[in-house]
Amino acid sequence: MQSPIYLTGTGQTRFGEHWDMSIKDLMEESIDAAIENAGCTALDIDMVIVANMLGEVASNQAHLGAMAASLLPHHPPALRAEAACASGAVALHTACALLESGKAQTVLVVGVEKMTDIAPSKIAAGLMGAADAEKDAPCGLTFPGIFGLIANRYMHEFNLSRERLNHVSARHHKNGVKNPFAQFRKEIPAEAISMSPKVADPLCMLDCSPISDGAASVVLSTKFESPIKIAASQLATDTLSITDRPTITSFAATKDAMSAALQEANIEREEIAHIELHDCFSIAALISLEDMGFATPGNAIALYEKESPMTINQSGGLKACGHPVAATGIKQVIDVSKQLKNSKSSYGLAHNFGGAAATCGIHILSHA
Amino acid sequence: MQSPIYLTGTGQTRFGEHWDMSIKDLMEESIDAAIENAGCTALDIDMVIVANMLGEVASNQAHLGAMAASLLPHHPPALRAEAACASGAVALHTACALLESGKAQTVLVVGVEKMTDIAPSKIAAGLMGAADAEKDAPCGLTFPGIFGLIANRYMHEFNLSRERLNHVSARHHKNGVKNPFAQFRKEIPAEAISMSPKVADPLCMLDCSPISDGAASVVLSTKFESPIKIAASQLATDTLSITDRPTITSFAATKDAMSAALQEANIEREEIAHIELHDCFSIAALISLEDMGFATPGNAIALYEKESPMTINQSGGLKACGHPVAATGIKQVIDVSKQLKNSKSSYGLAHNFGGAAATCGIHILSHA
Repeated sequence: MQSPIYLTGTGQTRFGEHWDMSIKDLMEESIDAAIENAGCTALDIDMVIVANMLGEVASNQAHLGAMAASLLPHHPPALRAEAACASGAVALHTACALLESGKAQTVLVVGVEKMTDIAPSKIAAGLMGAADAEKDAPCGLTFPGIFGLIANRYMHEFNLSRERLNHVSARHHKNGVKNPFAQFRKEIPAEAISMSPKVADPLCMLDCSPISDGAASVVLSTKFESPIKIAASQLATDTLSITDRPTITSFAATKDAMSAALQEANIEREEIAHIELHDCFSIAALISLEDMGFATPGNAIALYEKESPMTINQSGGLKACGHPVAATGIKQVIDVSKQLKNSKSSYGLAHNFGGAAATCGIHILSHA
Repeated sequence: MQSPIYLTGTGQTRFGEHWDMSIKDLMEESIDAAIENAGCTALDIDMVIVANMLGEVASNQAHLGAMAASLLPHHPPALRAEAACASGAVALHTACALLESGKAQTVLVVGVEKMTDIAPSKIAAGLMGAADAEKDAPCGLTFPGIFGLIANRYMHEFNLSRERLNHVSARHHKNGVKNPFAQFRKEIPAEAISMSPKVADPLCMLDCSPISDGAASVVLSTKFESPIKIAASQLATDTLSITDRPTITSFAATKDAMSAALQEANIEREEIAHIELHDCFSIAALISLEDMGFATPGNAIALYEKESPMTINQSGGLKACGHPVAATGIKQVIDVSKQLKNSKSSYGLAHNFGGAAATCGIHILSHA
């Protein structure tokens, strides 16, 4: 990267069920918080990128870039970036490109999702837009169904028991208790996970991240310095449909993005002390840790059964924080920055994917 | 701009009613054509940007970046950019930022829309997502309704007769006859325009661009040279809702984008010989020409009543070519490049807006 990109300001709403707030209200609360936190004013924002997946489906609202820009006094140029659940990461990547190109010096990135206003069946159908509507949806698959297949195959290949898998969600829920922005702040014992209602065998309700409303915003700048900077911003893409892949127990996009991110940051994997990863389903956390090289295939569960050398989803992850789709990738970066500020370690990482990891975005943060 | 961005390859489908093609099929045809036209191979594509507005509404399909990347052998990193009908322009702008940042050397930009598979009432509701769902839609407005209000006010302020307005669509239809990619290739006499069924007083059916399927792709590159380059890429944003504006007969976003584009290209307005502008409705063409400074307020109609110093929508514009929403901004750039290649003039301009010009993107092209 030519000039450092600073994480100049951060702000988010609590994730959860916000019956009294519209998509615009959610954006506004997180934007106000991020600008108040930043070392600049609203008028310093050169460009706005909004990450959103379900605006059309849940709120009859496209054109969210202009809606966010309308909330600022000078309504700067704006656009919306989308890659399903990886919308947050692709918006951050777009912002980095704009900053590195010199087209902008200070960019506001807003991730937002309003999911609880419509029937869960409609949200489930909308979320299936993240898969291939010609290849995956006609099989009757839903996203829990896709990750149920993946979990089944993983447990078969690596002889992972249902009981051991329980430790993933249990850890995330334990971590979430301390996070004031988390949707669920309740410790849940490991044995309760697999006793919750079955959603898509072998996955139970407590293996799945919830449906949530929420927004998270960051101000990225090459002009206004801050203690934390972006050390790497990388995207990678795989086939959209899982039917086109050689394996479903490993995600090529995560591997590609991780390898490129380590190279861009010019660091070793072991230097990363804090990770926020995309645990849309418990099984996804294990596969992602393996694809990022923090464990060998089949062995990531050990990182949940004992103390891990780095923190994993200290925020509570998608499971406990909630998963307002496009807000997640922005919120992960906010959490990693908080962890780094309270840490002597140099690097933290946010891992965000969309669909069955058809898109993966990895951002590495460091002290400036 | 640091290094020239070349328009290395272009390709499009015919715009129209493609009952036998899915959104994926449309993308594939235009991508194949653009890559065949380019001085590179598919494997040279570093990144894919897909412009799309209505994928979720009309095809239950989000995540179109990964879908487009799946069509390439190496599925490079990809994302979708959206700003309603200006999605094409914001995707081009994003591609320029990626190229100027050095994050990519060759970017494929695909604009696609599949609109004819669902009921026109559902498409009309989807298109209203380009306006403010909290402020504009509850008034019962549709987009023809919004532009009907605008046309009424414009005709009152500037004493423009319904008969004179007819010349806009008539000229666009006349131009479209020669365009093999246009949806409608039939000359329509001026007097027939206002005799077509009324849609939103004073606008008639032949004042409105149609509902269309189609895709258009370009390959932009800093590595593979070509005779045409991007001389300026600028976006501007206005309030999303027309209820928040001081006037509805002039669009601030067009003025802002134009002023910035002329400055970036470092040229005078008079050097522009070819324009493709966003005539979603006939009245929009007049307002846009005035906001870009090619006519004083109320006088743009004169550019349609006699020969204009520059060509205007030689392709047929949105009226005759069709308006597959997000494909339009890409197709405009393709048409301007063709016009420049057959011209001794130095500059051509593509003007693309979204909603009631809440977002405006202007691209100036020149000989390399």
